[in-house]
Amino acid sequence: MDTEEKLTPEEKAYRERVANVPYYSGSITIDEEIPLSSGEALSNITVAYDTWGTLNSEKDNVILIEHALSGNSHAADAFRKGSFREGWWNRIVGPGKVIDTEKYYVICSNVLGGCSGTTGPSSIKPGTDHPYGMDFPVVTVKDMVVVQRKMLERMGINRVKAVMGGSLGGMQSLVWAKKYPDVVENCIAIATTWRTSAQSIAFNEVGRRSIIHDPGFNNGQYKKGEQPKHGFAIARMIGHITYLCNESMNRKFGRDIVGDKIDFTMGKEFQVESYLEHQGYKFVDRFDANSYLYITRAIDYFALCHSPEAIVNRFKDSPVKFLILSYDSDWLFPTSQMKELLNALTTAGVNATFAEINYPYGHDSFLLEEDKQSRYIKAFLDGELIDSSDGSQSGSQASNKKPGHNKPVESRADLQAISKLVTQGSRVLDLGCGSGELLAELRDNMGCSVYGIDFDENETIATAAHGIPVIKHDLEEGLPMFPDKSFDFVILSLAFMQIRNQKNLFQEMLRVGKKVIITFPNFGYRKLRNYLMFKGRMPVGTSIPYTWYETPNIHHTTLLDFRDFVTDNDGVIEHEDYLKECSSGKYKKISFHPNMRADTIIVVASSKE
Amino acid sequence: MDTEEKLTPEEKAYRERVANVPYYSGSITIDEEIPLSSGEALSNITVAYDTWGTLNSEKDNVILIEHALSGNSHAADAFRKGSFREGWWNRIVGPGKVIDTEKYYVICSNVLGGCSGTTGPSSIKPGTDHPYGMDFPVVTVKDMVVVQRKMLERMGINRVKAVMGGSLGGMQSLVWAKKYPDVVENCIAIATTWRTSAQSIAFNEVGRRSIIHDPGFNNGQYKKGEQPKHGFAIARMIGHITYLCNESMNRKFGRDIVGDKIDFTMGKEFQVESYLEHQGYKFVDRFDANSYLYITRAIDYFALCHSPEAIVNRFKDSPVKFLILSYDSDWLFPTSQMKELLNALTTAGVNATFAEINYPYGHDSFLLEEDKQSRYIKAFLDGELIDSSDGSQSGSQASNKKPGHNKPVESRADLQAISKLVTQGSRVLDLGCGSGELLAELRDNMGCSVYGIDFDENETIATAAHGIPVIKHDLEEGLPMFPDKSFDFVILSLAFMQIRNQKNLFQEMLRVGKKVIITFPNFGYRKLRNYLMFKGRMPVGTSIPYTWYETPNIHHTTLLDFRDFVTDNDGVIEHEDYLKECSSGKYKKISFHPNMRADTIIVVASSKE
Repeated sequence: MDTEEKLTPEEKAYRERVANVPYYSGSITIDEEIPLSSGEALSNITVAYDTWGTLNSEKDNVILIEHALSGNSHAADAFRKGSFREGWWNRIVGPGKVIDTEKYYVICSNVLGGCSGTTGPSSIKPGTDHPYGMDFPVVTVKDMVVVQRKMLERMGINRVKAVMGGSLGGMQSLVWAKKYPDVVENCIAIATTWRTSAQSIAFNEVGRRSIIHDPGFNNGQYKKGEQPKHGFAIARMIGHITYLCNESMNRKFGRDIVGDKIDFTMGKEFQVESYLEHQGYKFVDRFDANSYLYITRAIDYFALCHSPEAIVNRFKDSPVKFLILSYDSDWLFPTSQMKELLNALTTAGVNATFAEINYPYGHDSFLLEEDKQSRYIKAFLDGELIDSSDGSQSGSQASNKKPGHNKPVESRADLQAISKLVTQGSRVLDLGCGSGELLAELRDNMGCSVYGIDFDENETIATAAHGIPVIKHDLEEGLPMFPDKSFDFVILSLAFMQIRNQKNLFQEMLRVGKKVIITFPNFGYRKLRNYLMFKGRMPVGTSIPYTWYETPNIHHTTLLDFRDFVTDNDGVIEHEDYLKECSSGKYKKISFHPNMRADTIIVVASSKE
Repeated sequence: MDTEEKLTPEEKAYRERVANVPYYSGSITIDEEIPLSSGEALSNITVAYDTWGTLNSEKDNVILIEHALSGNSHAADAFRKGSFREGWWNRIVGPGKVIDTEKYYVICSNVLGGCSGTTGPSSIKPGTDHPYGMDFPVVTVKDMVVVQRKMLERMGINRVKAVMGGSLGGMQSLVWAKKYPDVVENCIAIATTWRTSAQSIAFNEVGRRSIIHDPGFNNGQYKKGEQPKHGFAIARMIGHITYLCNESMNRKFGRDIVGDKIDFTMGKEFQVESYLEHQGYKFVDRFDANSYLYITRAIDYFALCHSPEAIVNRFKDSPVKFLILSYDSDWLFPTSQMKELLNALTTAGVNATFAEINYPYGHDSFLLEEDKQSRYIKAFLDGELIDSSDGSQSGSQASNKKPGHNKPVESRADLQAISKLVTQGSRVLDLGCGSGELLAELRDNMGCSVYGIDFDENETIATAAHGIPVIKHDLEEGLPMFPDKSFDFVILSLAFMQIRNQKNLFQEMLRVGKKVIITFPNFGYRKLRNYLMFKGRMPVGTSIPYTWYETPNIHHTTLLDFRDFVTDNDGVIEHEDYLKECSSGKYKKISFHPNMRADTIIVVASSKE
């Protein structure tokens, strides 16, 4: 009760809410024999799990949390035997958190092969009086998921609102979506990969060698409390380095030394050495070396499918909706690997929302960062926006900014005009989709199936909150995530002039879309011509309101030039609309002399035969 | 002789050249007592070294090669006792190589604390019959360099054309330049850092722990051939992972397995595991575990100075010329750390040439990559250009491309006009310097002291070959490497329209230069106005020859607009020149109605008081 007294009123109130959330911690035994990926089988598997909240009568509020390598079933804060115990993902899961235990029924179980209650190498080997040790069969991420499915069956749960996790937890979530698309509604995979890289395997292998060569290892038959501690601590230290990043380590330790001055010894000189030692041996006290061997091995084996093409085939038109989040500082499972997954899923016709989050704490960011992760998850899962706590407009890039960006569709003439060009029930991709207003209108009023791309964090979150799949992406990189002719319409409204490599993007749009709709300010507009002609200055007007050196528009064009551009890049113009702002602020359509009289042009183009 | 027979004619010819290079391998003993950084001292230090080539009579052709952690004195190929032995840096050092042993007298010695002939922990401790082991005093990179200086003294060498190396070799080279600026003419530091990061220390520490906890370690008193092999091999494996990179490991191994199928065991399943094991135990056979402890410790301790500011003070106006090369895939010593060093050196008024080389093999790139590294070294050291073997124009960026980029100064009116604006003997920085023609002319004919920046690889190499210090740098990042008012003139000719953040760059130019000279195509030029007015198309002309979507010019301006821009950004225009191309192709100066009649503008500006 001492610690209780030190709590702030907010913390006390929070703990009261935690205390009021129904919490259960227990285990379930699966009496049937479970065949494993290796060809072996296990019987009477015990699964330790925790639950928070209440299963509603429709049984449609289940969230399944998957833990990472060193985790356990205790994902969220709870009182256990009267004392408060922190959950490893309490920034994300808890009362009032994004995975709200006052709303959802949250389940988290310890993985097969683990050491926190679920059957693993430290369990007693049937028919003997000693633990399995190295006699435990090698297990895979798939085996872990199969066991969880059995657990849910026993609990009478056949539908999960979301399965989610980071790192190994993300791998399990992806396998859930692959194996049980009829059970999983949403899959949220964070800071993970679709297959473990050679570098990750290498780090795991070095850690395992360190354990196995420790004289205390004894082929895994060490006694409880007599772990191969030095080797195991070293394995953990190696792992720990890979969970941080250069920048976070420099910020945290730099070259700070332990004492007052350098001792010139082989002992601990630097703070980082002392920290790693502490982390390494602390881990030995709470985890089992054999489990570490088995779980890292499962991570090595992990490949959702053997190739991106195989993912495309396996996930073809999967009904599962995906949210994929990576962290830019995560070098263990870098964004590039997550993008390979994204591109395969979108190529398979799956709805996948993706963002790389900027946060400088390496792989562990998914455990530490709360704000951006929560905002994406909340928008994706509940269609709700959370205000950014720092109010920043991070991730914004000129290439996707537009004048009047956040205005609703009805106040933007270009969007109104575009929506008239799109066919009922068609499939539409909007590049630089902003907060998704146009796409939402096309979906709701025209029955379109829609997808968005934007490079701005807040815009992509806002689009996701409309229930629209959206990808945070720099258009300069083209559209590698979409196959040929996968959309009826690809729209780029008022942002085309902001692209550096317009030729490439236009060709990508023609490749991906049956039709392309581009709107742009017309530099041939009379007022702009006159501006340059008579003032001798770079034109400024309603359609291009910026000064020349601050404009995001880096390549202006005229209607006549644009027509040539389309032709020169294997396109055919199918339709043109010419708009002009009237004194009332509204737009009207122009018919004659459009290159002179229209300030905004809309072009529909398609590929030349 | 079997292997000899398999050689190609080229290899045979090369080996003949190697055989004809005078080669010596031996050692020297330094009889005086050498005080160490730790406060201890060592007497009778033996230094093992190799030399190639002939010391010329002026004794000014010495190149000192510094080896990395696991290296030795055998840097270049040589015949030893009749058999050919490869040198660890034979891509760079050898007959006809960039460090040409037919021209230079090349020396490489084994470091203090090493295990290849120089005194180290495996040497017999004086007064005993056993090796030092852990009784060897801790040494630093500075100690290594002090011993080398003594070696050179004994050899009668007091001037070195260049000291160079990668990784630990780069650290030693930097310390040479710091401690002995009167000895070192050029310092070439590759794939290194100015101080070891927390992450590097962490990896080293984990490796050391692995050795020390091996039961065979015996506090360093293991017998020859009875190394603590498992722990030592693990240490090497950890190191090896850090010398590669994710991309190179994926390319080399991916997830390839050792056998025909996955065995589901803890044994070697993946090729990468087998490779690492091979590398680890191979290293145990050729290196000493105690030396590994001592040398990694020296790397941990390495900090050229304790802060960038201290580098500025220590290197103030140092006469040593630097070439600093980093590799973009090197995550052990990333480019960001090299840029900190560069910025400190340039702030100190030192001539430092810098480039980040694109090569996807991680830290080990400096041992593997030959072409780009050689081209920079050759240009820097000998003022000679080597043709790129792949003929690529790598690294080229729109922001530094200019029309007529490679034309000599006399054919570019803007450059001719600029050279008339620069004061005799002034200090000049050229942004987007191309191949350095203007700077060379200003230096040779005007006595200017010059510096260049460009983002193109070939251009920076060409500039370096003029003997001009040059930095491969993206101007969008500003000019963090130069202090306030450190140049009389900062020039940006015909590239200003290619910059995205013009405001920032202009303010940086005003900060760094007493005067700023900018030339740009005038969008107010009559022919361009008429073009838009009467053709209704984006203007194209001699001064802006590109189509609208392929032009590197992303922000056009007119003379009138530019005047406002200067004023709005705290600048004052001191002088303007107006140029117009005549029918003859030559330029003439315009006096009246320049915004209408000049196609090219030159502005000299300075900061508002």
